[in-house]
Amino acid sequence: MTTNHFCTLCGEKLSDVFVEGRVRPACSGCGHIVYLNPLPAVAAVLLQSGRVLLIRRGVEPGAGLWALPSGFMEQDESPEQAVVREVLEETNVQCVPGRLLGATTHHDHVFGHVLVLAFAARFADGDLRAGDDAREALWFDTQNLPDMAFRSHAEFVRQAEQLMECNT
Amino acid sequence: MTTNHFCTLCGEKLSDVFVEGRVRPACSGCGHIVYLNPLPAVAAVLLQSGRVLLIRRGVEPGAGLWALPSGFMEQDESPEQAVVREVLEETNVQCVPGRLLGATTHHDHVFGHVLVLAFAARFADGDLRAGDDAREALWFDTQNLPDMAFRSHAEFVRQAEQLMECNT
Repeated sequence: MTTNHFCTLCGEKLSDVFVEGRVRPACSGCGHIVYLNPLPAVAAVLLQSGRVLLIRRGVEPGAGLWALPSGFMEQDESPEQAVVREVLEETNVQCVPGRLLGATTHHDHVFGHVLVLAFAARFADGDLRAGDDAREALWFDTQNLPDMAFRSHAEFVRQAEQLMECNT
Repeated sequence: MTTNHFCTLCGEKLSDVFVEGRVRPACSGCGHIVYLNPLPAVAAVLLQSGRVLLIRRGVEPGAGLWALPSGFMEQDESPEQAVVREVLEETNVQCVPGRLLGATTHHDHVFGHVLVLAFAARFADGDLRAGDDAREALWFDTQNLPDMAFRSHAEFVRQAEQLMECNT
């Protein structure tokens, strides 16, 4: 989680000022105000024959626990492009993003305030192989999920299942 | 749109380095890498009797044009809290956020790469009065929208109407 000490525009020290209803870091040199926002991430729910694709996290938060393939959006990516990239990086699977399931925020000790957009996604191609920050990548029975790193991810799996039931 | 010249952790100059698949600003002093992400915002679609609540924007981008009540998420807000705050600030209306309609990204000349989450919302209370960055706040017939600042906002209105038709 980045703590703002110096102005990224001019390099002067920042100090706290009250602006637009909040205390915000502001530059004593050039007047630049730092507006802090949640960090946007995407997560993918790939369901197939009652199983969901999960990865075992190699890094904090939640290192060693299981999670949906997920990661931060890069600048100039759409949410769907971020989903395709993250699933490929972490599992070697090509997927097709589908319905937006939900958006939720949480606070973690590494990245601070994180905004997660969860998408249903369809398996398209690829041999499962863990990559990037993932130690393992496996399909799990949705009725028997392992210890999950994020409560919201288990909830997104349930939402995706309900969506599939509605569509069948 | 903020351009990163100096490290916010130590104040040293940043330079471009290739890290994790992209050129990113990085600090020659402390090694801090700046990961750039889209800026998350929310927009609200309040529908009532075939009309939608819009505001006329007082600031760029799209100053003078109409848009959904919308704005950037603050740190430590949920998307729903951001919706309630932005609608209140811009229209003086209390609303109850409902279904997440969609998420889209666009690029504008003021804020760069912006991620917009659109929510259906229900009018709860309040006398309509423009505030904050909004010059006017008015209800419009959804079949006769004015010139809109963002194409995605007109699309979100259509999505919310379809959702209401499905629910009736």
